[in-house]
Amino acid sequence: MCPREAPNVTDPIHALVWAEGSAAEEEPDTYPNDVNAAISAHLNEDDDFVAKTASLTDVHHGMSEPDLAWADVVLWWGHRYHGDVPDGVVERIERHIAWHDLGFIALHSAHYSKPFTSLIGATGDLGEVRNNAEAEHIEVRTPDHPIAEGVDDFTLPKVEMYGEPFDVPDPDTVVFHSTFEGGGEFRSGITFDLDSARCFYFRPGHEEFRLYHRQDIRQILANATRWAAGRD
Amino acid sequence: MCPREAPNVTDPIHALVWAEGSAAEEEPDTYPNDVNAAISAHLNEDDDFVAKTASLTDVHHGMSEPDLAWADVVLWWGHRYHGDVPDGVVERIERHIAWHDLGFIALHSAHYSKPFTSLIGATGDLGEVRNNAEAEHIEVRTPDHPIAEGVDDFTLPKVEMYGEPFDVPDPDTVVFHSTFEGGGEFRSGITFDLDSARCFYFRPGHEEFRLYHRQDIRQILANATRWAAGRD
Amino acid sequence: MCPREAPNVTDPIHALVWAEGSAAEEEPDTYPNDVNAAISAHLNEDDDFVAKTASLTDVHHGMSEPDLAWADVVLWWGHRYHGDVPDGVVERIERHIAWHDLGFIALHSAHYSKPFTSLIGATGDLGEVRNNAEAEHIEVRTPDHPIAEGVDDFTLPKVEMYGEPFDVPDPDTVVFHSTFEGGGEFRSGITFDLDSARCFYFRPGHEEFRLYHRQDIRQILANATRWAAGRD
Amino acid sequence: MCPREAPNVTDPIHALVWAEGSAAEEEPDTYPNDVNAAISAHLNEDDDFVAKTASLTDVHHGMSEPDLAWADVVLWWGHRYHGDVPDGVVERIERHIAWHDLGFIALHSAHYSKPFTSLIGATGDLGEVRNNAEAEHIEVRTPDHPIAEGVDDFTLPKVEMYGEPFDVPDPDTVVFHSTFEGGGEFRSGITFDLDSARCFYFRPGHEEFRLYHRQDIRQILANATRWAAGRD
Repeated sequence: MCPREAPNVTDPIHALVWAEGSAAEEEPDTYPNDVNAAISAHLNEDDDFVAKTASLTDVHHGMSEPDLAWADVVLWWGHRYHGDVPDGVVERIERHIAWHDLGFIALHSAHYSKPFTSLIGATGDLGEVRNNAEAEHIEVRTPDHPIAEGVDDFTLPKVEMYGEPFDVPDPDTVVFHSTFEGGGEFRSGITFDLDSARCFYFRPGHEEFRLYHRQDIRQILANATRWAAGRD
Repeated sequence: MCPREAPNVTDPIHALVWAEGSAAEEEPDTYPNDVNAAISAHLNEDDDFVAKTASLTDVHHGMSEPDLAWADVVLWWGHRYHGDVPDGVVERIERHIAWHDLGFIALHSAHYSKPFTSLIGATGDLGEVRNNAEAEHIEVRTPDHPIAEGVDDFTLPKVEMYGEPFDVPDPDTVVFHSTFEGGGEFRSGITFDLDSARCFYFRPGHEEFRLYHRQDIRQILANATRWAAGRD
Repeated sequence: MCPREAPNVTDPIHALVWAEGSAAEEEPDTYPNDVNAAISAHLNEDDDFVAKTASLTDVHHGMSEPDLAWADVVLWWGHRYHGDVPDGVVERIERHIAWHDLGFIALHSAHYSKPFTSLIGATGDLGEVRNNAEAEHIEVRTPDHPIAEGVDDFTLPKVEMYGEPFDVPDPDTVVFHSTFEGGGEFRSGITFDLDSARCFYFRPGHEEFRLYHRQDIRQILANATRWAAGRD
Repeated sequence: MCPREAPNVTDPIHALVWAEGSAAEEEPDTYPNDVNAAISAHLNEDDDFVAKTASLTDVHHGMSEPDLAWADVVLWWGHRYHGDVPDGVVERIERHIAWHDLGFIALHSAHYSKPFTSLIGATGDLGEVRNNAEAEHIEVRTPDHPIAEGVDDFTLPKVEMYGEPFDVPDPDTVVFHSTFEGGGEFRSGITFDLDSARCFYFRPGHEEFRLYHRQDIRQILANATRWAAGRD
């Protein structure tokens, strides 16, 4: 094992923000350049980050060796095309996590993505799923966690709902916990230690709603990227 | 389940004709633009059809969500690269079959393709296979089936032979049955009902011979595309 | 100058059929795979031809050195993207015409294409242009020319009209001549000798109408391809 | 002439934001996904806009007929690769401006871009150019112009300087005027009426500095996009 060198804290954090392409196909007015462009742009407004987009349709599916060597953290948004991610991509990500402490952030439907389910060793199955544009109340369960910095409890007016049981191992921390207008609850922001690397799952992010433009969500993703890079 | 709306019978039938690319690689003088270009072109000569080509090397392997939402029927020709089709492609096709009554037509070596074997729940294994450029006599077993409309018994002068046993479930209809110059027989044109969706397998179509340019084969594929779209 | 070797008359004629992509963009129900796919498919139904599609968006704009070395004839359909063809492409085509007697066939709006205007040394400007879906009567002016073989005078029911004066040098032969329902006339099928190479311009082919599927047009394009390859 | 239909004021404004790719190549830490991704992302945070990125390396150089038909406004950032833009791209843009009142916004070094110089009929030549990371003071000269809405005089701390004489025709409006720390002045924000279409040039935007992330610059680009679309 070859842990990542102690980062120079003045270097920007390199975030490789991956999306599969379906959000731009299905919601061209909401994410005309896909979810990864929106998230990258938000991170890039802060000098602490350099965020590059990557996509299923890029060469080597956006996860080439040089891309992964460059990255401190991978953020992953997928929905319809999980099965199109070849196993070799997952193996490359896992090697960079194991050898170089690459951070990994799984977003929304990425609970079913190959890299996430492989990392946590579980199915990522959900209980009930409803797409009723209902409200979600998010409670900060661990206010002193770096991912919660500057974030208070908040409510998203329209979401696709996911319910427990969420088939994941016991998380190391439940940072955020959700309850839904139509009933049900979910561990919406959870961390997993992967030896010395770090993984975070964050539930909100359905492609029909403009959640990634909200200030609270942006704050959480910036915090999580910083934390997953070991810079908290 | 969400069955496809009753089609407007004046709309053209949308056929998404997929091929893996090997025929153009291996037989550039026979199918210089691949088998899917030949089949699409034949369908497009008839105002009833709009046929688009799709390929393993296209974005999302030619089976994106928008492509599948557009299509009434998928025709599939594969031979050497079955294993390069990601599972996600198969899952997308199956979902569109289950939810939207997408029709599926498997051609020749596609008896081993991932979508076909998954749909029928069997291996698609063959008995004897001979590539001796021998004759195949095709008998119309179910003359009143829409796929046989305007087709009489006919003989292909040179084919690659497939023999029984063909490991598929009992078909709903055996439309065509073959016997071969060098011996052996095969259920060459068979239908499977997939709840309210429709699947057809058609045996002839080896890449070395110009079978897809024959009038009898073209008639069968046009009939089958119309039937699989529920337009018979 | 290095004239092409006398072809082996049993070899198929290699046709490289180029289109710019706009017909598939603008008329997806008429030419879902673009005009070049339709023309290639028709040629490929005849064992005398092997026709490959090429496109503006291919590597080297579909006119690489190996593509041109393979080709006996280039057929060219362009409309909106003439200016996107780099000068290097034109130079490569002209070199293959000058050194290897490559044949060149310009279709419809290719009167304004860079290769055609460069070859003939004129602007290709038209007189009146009307897109009124009017009829065009095509008279065979030179019945004994190989391009007219098997073709009688015929009428196209709906066309985009081009009128004289057509700014081209005096053709070597006017094979076809058109008059239009709304008035006007045009030299619709004309040949130019380019030293030992051969060039043909053919007017019909507007992307809104299904002209390339007509038997008379297909006969003319097959004849012209054979003639431009020096195989008459 | 076929002026654009009066827009439905509830429709979002469609902005096609083009960049040539050099900023991502040369300043990967400043614009890791290129300037167009940054500008698009900012516009997309406002529900009034749907902004899509387009690039020199896209099919049809990101300026296909369907792209242009979709767009209400094109924003253009180029620097090193002006000469790689084919003339056909310029012709298409000009046709959409002439026929459909497409708006055009030229950014920074796009003073030398083919579309801008062609539209204004001048060279776009500059007087002195200095890249000294000096300050630029921008004065709002026409405070009641829609492009100046909500913008006061402001100072950019580090810029590449352009000096007069700027070889352009007399603008219809000088909205912004700059003076520089090291001396010199420039008409930094100028409008040109193109019959019923609208063109805006905006000087700041050098790739080394993070100017497009500033709130004042973002306000100006949003205002300009709205104005160029005829929505002021």
